[in-house]
Amino acid sequence: MADVTLAEVREWDKRDPLREARHAFALPHGVIYLDGNSLGPLPRATAARLADVVAREWGVGLIRSWDDAGWMAAPARVGGKIARLIGAGADEVIVADSTSVNLFKLLGAAVALRPGRTTLLTKDGGFPTDRHVAEGLQRLLPHVRVVAVPAYSLTDAIDGDTAVLLLCHVHFRSGARHDMAALTAAAHRAGALTLWDLSHSAGALAVDLNGAGAGMAVGCGYKFLNGGPGAPAFLYLSRNLQAEARSPLQGWIGHAAPFGFSDRYEPAAGIPRFLTGTPPVLGLAALEAGIDLMLTADLAAVWEKSARLFDLFASRVASARPRLELLTPPEANLRGSHIAFRCADAAQIMPQLVGQGVIGDFRPPDVLRFGLTPLFTSFEDVWLASDALLQCAS
Amino acid sequence: MADVTLAEVREWDKRDPLREARHAFALPHGVIYLDGNSLGPLPRATAARLADVVAREWGVGLIRSWDDAGWMAAPARVGGKIARLIGAGADEVIVADSTSVNLFKLLGAAVALRPGRTTLLTKDGGFPTDRHVAEGLQRLLPHVRVVAVPAYSLTDAIDGDTAVLLLCHVHFRSGARHDMAALTAAAHRAGALTLWDLSHSAGALAVDLNGAGAGMAVGCGYKFLNGGPGAPAFLYLSRNLQAEARSPLQGWIGHAAPFGFSDRYEPAAGIPRFLTGTPPVLGLAALEAGIDLMLTADLAAVWEKSARLFDLFASRVASARPRLELLTPPEANLRGSHIAFRCADAAQIMPQLVGQGVIGDFRPPDVLRFGLTPLFTSFEDVWLASDALLQCAS
Repeated sequence: MADVTLAEVREWDKRDPLREARHAFALPHGVIYLDGNSLGPLPRATAARLADVVAREWGVGLIRSWDDAGWMAAPARVGGKIARLIGAGADEVIVADSTSVNLFKLLGAAVALRPGRTTLLTKDGGFPTDRHVAEGLQRLLPHVRVVAVPAYSLTDAIDGDTAVLLLCHVHFRSGARHDMAALTAAAHRAGALTLWDLSHSAGALAVDLNGAGAGMAVGCGYKFLNGGPGAPAFLYLSRNLQAEARSPLQGWIGHAAPFGFSDRYEPAAGIPRFLTGTPPVLGLAALEAGIDLMLTADLAAVWEKSARLFDLFASRVASARPRLELLTPPEANLRGSHIAFRCADAAQIMPQLVGQGVIGDFRPPDVLRFGLTPLFTSFEDVWLASDALLQCAS
Repeated sequence: MADVTLAEVREWDKRDPLREARHAFALPHGVIYLDGNSLGPLPRATAARLADVVAREWGVGLIRSWDDAGWMAAPARVGGKIARLIGAGADEVIVADSTSVNLFKLLGAAVALRPGRTTLLTKDGGFPTDRHVAEGLQRLLPHVRVVAVPAYSLTDAIDGDTAVLLLCHVHFRSGARHDMAALTAAAHRAGALTLWDLSHSAGALAVDLNGAGAGMAVGCGYKFLNGGPGAPAFLYLSRNLQAEARSPLQGWIGHAAPFGFSDRYEPAAGIPRFLTGTPPVLGLAALEAGIDLMLTADLAAVWEKSARLFDLFASRVASARPRLELLTPPEANLRGSHIAFRCADAAQIMPQLVGQGVIGDFRPPDVLRFGLTPLFTSFEDVWLASDALLQCAS
């Protein structure tokens, strides 16, 4: 595939079952956007949806829109849509807060669900925030300790003292994917819970939380879900944990009767107990528009195209080895939906690419990262981007 | 003033220095909106501002807008504007998360700043969430206890075991205001911190956190600040506490170098360490537009008109006593910017009023609450609303 021509990949685009989805996004001219894994682009429908929320729902409906326009129901409604992308039940996902805050809430709940166990187990070199949030909880709970081990020894490190195994499903830098089913099973054998950070996998690949038997997860709305900058995040809590799990952040919207204004805190039934403050209506509306767009697509075609985009990119720049070292596992089932290269002068190369209209990410110290987002990324995009990268790295 | 005529109050409106501000809001026809203390109405400029953020900053700027459009700087920038409304330095306020989450962060910080002290002191019957959040922290920290006492015994209850005094500045139901300076001084004499919930006072009255020597505060963006449904909240941390205070929610945006992706958590210098997740850009943009509008007004005129609106409302319905019992203190310096009545059939009366286009709130068990928001509420509005209330309650 290294020798494939631009004319050939244009043929692939013509036969791509997802080729029309690209027109649903407001992509600027002159830009090849390979950063949808960091901030998804604007779906055209989002602008109209937000304008309506602002002018009609807020402007005219005012306070009445909490009920009449479904604002209060939005966290559960949008969560139920995300559930379809991650193999969860509609009543197992809710939209709230940020990924970091949701991590804290679920970690706090997990520790309380496993009294007597003291270890929050994670891996060395995962997404730093996951670890930082766990360490923040540790500062409150001195009996808890955060233990980080190399990825290859995770399974061995799970033991009877492990309260929860906290892992990024797909690594933010390398794109490497953990075997969710195997690690969840290993944790459960030891009586531990699992908490998966799906920030780089929700909307990027087929995720099956229920199939893996996973107990808890969090994820991000502004990457592959195209929910807009700083979109609210989501959390997943499996049905069998919902009756027992309690959020340490006892905000009013997680109360069984928020408008009862009782002095006594009584958590809502089910996953709404993990809501905290007033739902962020504007962010929820944009997120819903992004998810609605993704749900119109043939998801099997999305996952399949992601793999083909990856293979095209990897093969096209293979000749630049060893200067460009592929950091992402080449096997489709071992990765997410971005491609990363290690390159000594990555910090210099990425600005050059951006100057040419090819937008990816530099991740320190030496990584070039390109998101592969099948709804709007064409084979031609990848051909041209890999060409530009070859030029810069030659 | 009970006998003032509609013609007379129309004259007051003509002479009102704030009369033009009303046109800056997109108020629907046929509605007298006395619920700006629950959800502020839409400033006309907000729709255009949001459309630009969506179409240009997100749609065209994409990931580059984090720097180029000032998205990353927005929490501190908007916080600095709120600071001008609450008597704080520009580097003492930041916009983040929800009020509930901010309460948790500051309570967690306060407890750590006062080791050995075990009491989170609050009052009976305050805003329930304040207490619920404190009790959520207590569930994590068994050595801490939440103590709620009647308002009149707060000063006596502050002692050497009090870590922090947590109070709503203005009560959500009655509108009664605490003496911030006196209670803060009393807390400081005992070595305790103070945490003020300004949800019903920021933008509603002259708040002077620095003048009172207050250490911590939180507040809401979607009430008197007109920031939109579920707008992000703010938190205040006085300069002298910033070096020592640590957020228990160690999210990546509170890190000294969020894009360094270090395994080691190092809090940012100053108040940005109390940020957690990725800034909610859409919500921040709407909030900033609301605050910008308020900052164009003569604030002294706002506070003065609030008092006059109250007096008009109270005097007009005084004849309906005892059926309508004024719950709010009549003295301007003892209240916020809403008026509340106790009424046995409040739950029936409010829907009648809403049916006539007069929108206020019912608060269980028996309270009618009307927001007085001088930027867009006219004397005529209050005259007509009090007239409608008199009809319903006669």
